[in-house]
Amino acid sequence: MRNLRFSMSYDGTDYHGFQIQKDEITIEGVLKNAVNVLTGEDVDIIGCGRTDAGVHAQNYIFNFKTNSSIPCDKFPIALNTVTPDDITILSCEEVEENFHSRFCAKQKTYRYIIYNSRFKNPFLNRFSYHYKHKLDIESMNVAKKYIEGTHDFQCFMAQGSVVRDTVRTVYSIDITAKDDMIFIDVCGNGFLYNMVRIIVGTLIGVGNGKIQSEDISKIIEGRKRENAGMTVPACGLYLKEVVYEN
Amino acid sequence: MRNLRFSMSYDGTDYHGFQIQKDEITIEGVLKNAVNVLTGEDVDIIGCGRTDAGVHAQNYIFNFKTNSSIPCDKFPIALNTVTPDDITILSCEEVEENFHSRFCAKQKTYRYIIYNSRFKNPFLNRFSYHYKHKLDIESMNVAKKYIEGTHDFQCFMAQGSVVRDTVRTVYSIDITAKDDMIFIDVCGNGFLYNMVRIIVGTLIGVGNGKIQSEDISKIIEGRKRENAGMTVPACGLYLKEVVYEN
Repeated sequence: MRNLRFSMSYDGTDYHGFQIQKDEITIEGVLKNAVNVLTGEDVDIIGCGRTDAGVHAQNYIFNFKTNSSIPCDKFPIALNTVTPDDITILSCEEVEENFHSRFCAKQKTYRYIIYNSRFKNPFLNRFSYHYKHKLDIESMNVAKKYIEGTHDFQCFMAQGSVVRDTVRTVYSIDITAKDDMIFIDVCGNGFLYNMVRIIVGTLIGVGNGKIQSEDISKIIEGRKRENAGMTVPACGLYLKEVVYEN
Repeated sequence: MRNLRFSMSYDGTDYHGFQIQKDEITIEGVLKNAVNVLTGEDVDIIGCGRTDAGVHAQNYIFNFKTNSSIPCDKFPIALNTVTPDDITILSCEEVEENFHSRFCAKQKTYRYIIYNSRFKNPFLNRFSYHYKHKLDIESMNVAKKYIEGTHDFQCFMAQGSVVRDTVRTVYSIDITAKDDMIFIDVCGNGFLYNMVRIIVGTLIGVGNGKIQSEDISKIIEGRKRENAGMTVPACGLYLKEVVYEN
């Protein structure tokens, strides 16, 4: 059997996240069905992670094992003929038998896009979070330094999650402002449930003056969700890149 | 009565064009209803032109006369609370009694966006035309020079239109390529039905080698729609700017 690894981008607006669910339209469900249409096989799609309902991906990685003889350079074209327009398969390559999109991932980068302008922009509604009060990028850049590093990030985890080990490493947070757009790239070795969206909500709290950047360390050390900022909406979040060993 | 002039942007994907129609959702219909909700008045919305179903606007101009006392700086905010997210009112100013958004317009610029890449991009589907074969920008830039100027443009008018005078002036066509995006800005004193979309279809015909740029003059002089290129889809078209006297 061949083990094939794919990259894909998708507009997650109309999906209930990646992971297959009964009675809901999911990315995994659509992919599984598309592969079945092409090959007749009922494959197990292994995704690089669960993305929530409404979250997008610029570069999502998944793999599956198949007996199909479709060559790698033709597989994306073939899959794109049987997937809807809001999902695009970008590439395919054959990988070693033990490659696993989730377990082998060493690093992930999520991008959050804020449209920071007085009025909504009809062309960005699906793809960014509209925040109308002017944000102070400089103080957000001070605050991010307290988040980078290895910490117990329980304060940035959605309440009700059951994860024993809440220590993660955030390698970097890059904040780029261009015209009315703010891009926040968060790179880490793994993320707790809603972690990126709460980090961004906390940075927005700093940018609007409600949270002091010097208080971030206290918020992290206190390990209490209620001290951190809001959970920003899914529509601004993108899985941007997944890095594997080698 | 005050005569108020507004600018607005909208994602036209889910609308049957600007002009009000019975049993169809249109931009004008939504605006008329929104003004009624705010002021109780049944105003006549005067738009700067009809845009087709699915066409977008970055800067559409309209005006109406009202007895409302809502100040100009508050009117966009008020209207935005009663319009859907795919329509944004950007500005409002009081203008002379005889200002008319359509009759006073001297010049309009439409922008057409082509996504020229092998695969579709899920984030651009609503807002550009995906064309997968590589286009030769250089020859398109030669061809555009034969279109610029004052001509009888019947060859670029949708068949079945009933317009007696088919002479128009195209002031300029600007073609900008950036990464996989091609932006075509067509500026003129007025446009026939589907004219911009057929001009772009003809330029694409040049860019893919099916039409020779030197043949453009013959196509225009022949005044036959069938000699020009295809009518490209509405989703790539934007009303970009309207210029008025003064």
